Amino acid sequence: MRDAYHDELDALTVRLVEMTRLVRSAISRATTALLDADLHLAESVISHDEEVDRIFAEVETSIFDLMARQQPVAVDLRMIIAALRMGADLERMGDLAQHVAKVARLRHPESAVPPEMRATILEMGQVAERLVTKAGSCVASRDVETALELEADDDAMDRLHRRLFKVLMAPDWRYGVEPAIDVTLIGRYYERYADHAVRVARDVVYLVTGSRPHDVTAM
Amino acid sequence: MRDAYHDELDALTVRLVEMTRLVRSAISRATTALLDADLHLAESVISHDEEVDRIFAEVETSIFDLMARQQPVAVDLRMIIAALRMGADLERMGDLAQHVAKVARLRHPESAVPPEMRATILEMGQVAERLVTKAGSCVASRDVETALELEADDDAMDRLHRRLFKVLMAPDWRYGVEPAIDVTLIGRYYERYADHAVRVARDVVYLVTGSRPHDVTAM
Repeated sequence: MRDAYHDELDALTVRLVEMTRLVRSAISRATTALLDADLHLAESVISHDEEVDRIFAEVETSIFDLMARQQPVAVDLRMIIAALRMGADLERMGDLAQHVAKVARLRHPESAVPPEMRATILEMGQVAERLVTKAGSCVASRDVETALELEADDDAMDRLHRRLFKVLMAPDWRYGVEPAIDVTLIGRYYERYADHAVRVARDVVYLVTGSRPHDVTAM
Repeated sequence: MRDAYHDELDALTVRLVEMTRLVRSAISRATTALLDADLHLAESVISHDEEVDRIFAEVETSIFDLMARQQPVAVDLRMIIAALRMGADLERMGDLAQHVAKVARLRHPESAVPPEMRATILEMGQVAERLVTKAGSCVASRDVETALELEADDDAMDRLHRRLFKVLMAPDWRYGVEPAIDVTLIGRYYERYADHAVRVARDVVYLVTGSRPHDVTAM
């Protein structure tokens, strides 16, 4: 039977997985809001970010509380450190999805994304969702193999990000400065979102193996 | 007399302060490289970021090592958690300074910054330096009063960031899309740099008081 202390550690995992679910939904809906110029959906993403922040605050409180009452060692201490970092990354991913939704809101009733970029942005949203889904399943299962895959999966986002700049910089760009600024920022938000998902997966590797992913892949 | 364990904890502070010094120099030189289109200086910022990464890797190794050998509790455990977070923020600030330098390198021999934006970018660089200097002195002295000031100091960066967008979006913008993209990204890099400096200061507050800055300022 598990004691209350280990129940609390397990509860951290449950909360982190819940955070991945929320920030996945946030980036998915933000992408739709952006492409469909859907103000209602954008507002919903923006207001729901509070929930992510609230869960992260609970994760932090619960960790500081655990540390005050217990003296976590070895894998428990690694869990606590990893949970703090994963929580911070997921909280940031919520912010980034919110940033995307804010661009959608700012340009409503227009779409911030010119037609020839819709496919790339849609794909960036899909890659972001795939990464966070995988990160969430790694957090739940502590599967190191899958966690290590995220580094390569993230390359897809980098390729899409470069494609975006290529269109922006092309001599036939005809939308002027404002959409260029919007797309530059949007591209950066997706790229950062993906990067934080990779960091979550890296912390699963650390949690399980006690080593940084770099050391593990080098083995 | 202090024991070896506490000497190691103290050494963490020394390393973190050294990181603030390095990323301050990096953003200072990156700003100059950007405004003067100085390729040599840009290259130097880009290659020197390795040193920041190396110190952060040492901080991490030393922390994981401490945790494996000791059972840090109370303020020592807070120091370890704060050091991990501060190290991660400082490492990111190094990356952001490097990003600024990379824009300078990309546009050389031109300057990426149009004449009417030079003053704002220069000021963003100065605010960034001021913030990291203050953060570094808080890390060294553990002075909570000063750490709490950084939140307000960061408002100056937000004002400069908004001013940048105002110029970019003005109807008389005559530089086209490429410089608009550059300035959008540069502005974001400075803004994020400042944000991470604020987070370092917040961790000093946590380290000393055991509370998040929000709770402290509410007292």
